[in-house]
Amino acid sequence: MKGAQAIYETLYRAGVDTILANPGTSEMALVRALDDAGTIRGVLALFEGVVSGAADGYSRMAGKPAATLLHLGPGLANAGANLHNARRARSPVVNVVGEHARGHVALDAPLTTDIEAIARPFSRWVRTIGATAEAGRDTAAAIAAARRLGGPATLIVPADVAWSEGGTPADTPAAMAPARPDAALVDLAAGLLGGRGPRAMLLLGGGALGARGVTLAHRIASHTGARLASETFNRRAARGAGRPFIPKVPYMGEAAEAFLKDVDVLLLVEARSPVNFFGYPGKRGTPVSPGTRVETLAAPGEDGGWALEALCERLGAATPGRLPQGPAPQGPAGPIDAVSLARALAHRMPEGGVLCDEAITSGLALPEVLAAAAPYDHLDLMGGAIGGALPLSTGAALGDPSRRVTCVSGDGSALYTIQALWTQARENLDVTTVICANRSYAILAYEHLQIEGRLPGPRALPVLSLDRPAVGFAGLARGFGVEAVTVDTAEALDDALGAAGARRGPFLIEAVMAPVALPPRVT
Amino acid sequence: MKGAQAIYETLYRAGVDTILANPGTSEMALVRALDDAGTIRGVLALFEGVVSGAADGYSRMAGKPAATLLHLGPGLANAGANLHNARRARSPVVNVVGEHARGHVALDAPLTTDIEAIARPFSRWVRTIGATAEAGRDTAAAIAAARRLGGPATLIVPADVAWSEGGTPADTPAAMAPARPDAALVDLAAGLLGGRGPRAMLLLGGGALGARGVTLAHRIASHTGARLASETFNRRAARGAGRPFIPKVPYMGEAAEAFLKDVDVLLLVEARSPVNFFGYPGKRGTPVSPGTRVETLAAPGEDGGWALEALCERLGAATPGRLPQGPAPQGPAGPIDAVSLARALAHRMPEGGVLCDEAITSGLALPEVLAAAAPYDHLDLMGGAIGGALPLSTGAALGDPSRRVTCVSGDGSALYTIQALWTQARENLDVTTVICANRSYAILAYEHLQIEGRLPGPRALPVLSLDRPAVGFAGLARGFGVEAVTVDTAEALDDALGAAGARRGPFLIEAVMAPVALPPRVT
Repeated sequence: MKGAQAIYETLYRAGVDTILANPGTSEMALVRALDDAGTIRGVLALFEGVVSGAADGYSRMAGKPAATLLHLGPGLANAGANLHNARRARSPVVNVVGEHARGHVALDAPLTTDIEAIARPFSRWVRTIGATAEAGRDTAAAIAAARRLGGPATLIVPADVAWSEGGTPADTPAAMAPARPDAALVDLAAGLLGGRGPRAMLLLGGGALGARGVTLAHRIASHTGARLASETFNRRAARGAGRPFIPKVPYMGEAAEAFLKDVDVLLLVEARSPVNFFGYPGKRGTPVSPGTRVETLAAPGEDGGWALEALCERLGAATPGRLPQGPAPQGPAGPIDAVSLARALAHRMPEGGVLCDEAITSGLALPEVLAAAAPYDHLDLMGGAIGGALPLSTGAALGDPSRRVTCVSGDGSALYTIQALWTQARENLDVTTVICANRSYAILAYEHLQIEGRLPGPRALPVLSLDRPAVGFAGLARGFGVEAVTVDTAEALDDALGAAGARRGPFLIEAVMAPVALPPRVT
Repeated sequence: MKGAQAIYETLYRAGVDTILANPGTSEMALVRALDDAGTIRGVLALFEGVVSGAADGYSRMAGKPAATLLHLGPGLANAGANLHNARRARSPVVNVVGEHARGHVALDAPLTTDIEAIARPFSRWVRTIGATAEAGRDTAAAIAAARRLGGPATLIVPADVAWSEGGTPADTPAAMAPARPDAALVDLAAGLLGGRGPRAMLLLGGGALGARGVTLAHRIASHTGARLASETFNRRAARGAGRPFIPKVPYMGEAAEAFLKDVDVLLLVEARSPVNFFGYPGKRGTPVSPGTRVETLAAPGEDGGWALEALCERLGAATPGRLPQGPAPQGPAGPIDAVSLARALAHRMPEGGVLCDEAITSGLALPEVLAAAAPYDHLDLMGGAIGGALPLSTGAALGDPSRRVTCVSGDGSALYTIQALWTQARENLDVTTVICANRSYAILAYEHLQIEGRLPGPRALPVLSLDRPAVGFAGLARGFGVEAVTVDTAEALDDALGAAGARRGPFLIEAVMAPVALPPRVT
């Protein structure tokens, strides 16, 4: 069989049956092989940043590697920002990137670039297939690397490797279970928690924020009095009613310092010790107090769930913790602000729903208010490269079509990858997108105030504001084939969320946010 | 003064007074310095691919370096595809890219990447400023490198370098005139042209396609009988009535081979010897006949205009060549296809207009039909990374506001960087965008046929087609604040072009192309 077909057959044997694609001429044999192999479904996106962001979302919800098909170096570069996000999320993604036929590279045709060099900053593993006979073996190596290393593995496929006969599919070894931390660390952790009460904190990240992990962590907290927290941004956190509310470490350095101030022992479970998102003049780079002892119970990628279970046993924390039973969320009223937005989302969250959160300043209240919502999964932008949420929600819906996905995005963020809406329309995905239209990069006005001690002036403001003209998101959505409404009251937002949740297929709600006198305080 | 201000002051002294921007937190001091410096105008784009494509267009029309302001590694990656195009166009672009404060990099915060590694594949020069005192000097070095090397020069600015006091602006040495080729090459060229008539061909590229270059080349051709041709894609070619028609080397290999078949001597003037855009199974990588002697009169970046003038003198080609006087273009009628599209554009081209051409299959007839149009400048996508034309036209209008820019783009191409329309609306730029809506990546169906010998089947077609749903470009345009119409006859297209040309500010025309039974033959 041809090399291209061997690649697909190898992917398929490893359980990968979907490829998010934006191909070009150098990938034509890989396009044709979709027909020949008959196993892999190609899903087209109009821009590669949608491809890579959707791959991240797909892998988070499907629980297996996602695959992408990209066109040469520039196509890979377009995918780069969301590959960065996928890398920070440790999401296994196999990038299949076409390259010129091997004899053609030296001619330096217009689209020739150093694809390996473009791939490396965004990949945990990079390889160019050297011969058709190795296509299957190298594909299996890419899948294994994406799983093992947690992140994008980039497989570069010369066109002649793909179009030539002589390919042999390969079997990918079954995914290894994540490594279990040393039992001595469990003993150490138990010792450190003992008697400290709320001066000890368990900081959870990664898989430890799954339904099992948060339940175990809550049991430990109930038993010892330790505080629980999650990293600021999380791959997939089980939240909502019936689950413990686990606050995030705040985004901004000062709020994070206050949050972590009285912590004597910080115990990391699939989390990294907190650092500030950015450096600021004259400020420390981390919000962790200098006197805090930081210990790793489970590193990112290790089995934090096992560690938490072992810690429960070691502590004798056998009783499930008590969970507060709050009233069911009610629909909000009044103008749309960070709180009423969160209330509407909490009111309308379906059980088992998925929230993709890139609302930035408008999303400040989401985790806390949504603690009362039906149990749901909360997916954050992991790498800080904005423009993640719309693609992420597209991929999440592809990865688990049984759940309705709600995407909450700032207007600035949404405009990097707005083309995601078209793929939602074509695939009729159950995604409700809420655009928080405050008509500015509001976070940046705040950062300007933080760093420069004043608001932007007349020459700076134009590069931070999104008015003049205001973007008409409902019109954009319809142009991409997605029905949409614009709302400017919390009641109308709540109604629109209800209507969107009752239908099949995508829907967009442009939520015009109430003006704020000053940039909001980001906590 | 602060480092950020020293950067702007250095840019301003070198004549750079506009910066295309999509900043983030790490660039806040550079945003503030727009206020403090008071000399540089920031122009916001909603996506970095618009920033870099506009920088390319700006530099092509303004005849000086463009500047960009980008956010860390992911922002730079988003700019990568159009930086690749700018690099292939040899357009001087100074990228100012923010980096974390120096002390913050080691903390590996979420947005930390290897920015130099991301920059290198798309830049001709890369440097990270090491200290505030060096900010001015390094900026001057970047400007000089962009001019001298022809392409993007990337200057990475740690946030603390930008926000700290101690910056000193620097003067950039005046741009050097392009190098003149050795006079012996002129003698050689004259000898090779002598007596060969149409079996010799002058292949023009780069600056040799300016108004002066094409006039001189035409004089040589009239005197010797040599044929003239241009590269397939050109940075800025003087075309239209009163100028010689210089055909492009066809895009597809077979057509290019036929075009170059009887050429004994190919004389390159700021051009490279032709290579096929892609490799194909069993085909040679270049359309140049093995027996053709290829000589370089002027390499890319050298002074081809001087070389042509010297060659005229050496040949005694003193008489201006005769130019055919065709009838003035008339408005077309009937369905919209590649020919009627070109006729409408020819009919409505204003004198001194600018055409940004990324129409791919729909644009096949443009150069030939537009030979009868009012004199205009023809700007092509140079690096083959589609999604160039809308940003390019945005930057072209910023770079020379005295001319109306017409952008002709395939629908697939336009969707990579559709956000450019918003910058056109905000800046009220005189750009008419024509979207050739054939609702497919038509070039790819053709390439599939070329490479695979058959049209795409039921599993391949979905990743090559743009229908289901058809994108509503007029709605997208209005969402971005640009007025728009949809037309499906050549008469209506012609009328809409006329109306657009009579107004100020941007306008978009969605031209629904007549269906074609088979992918068009690309010549």
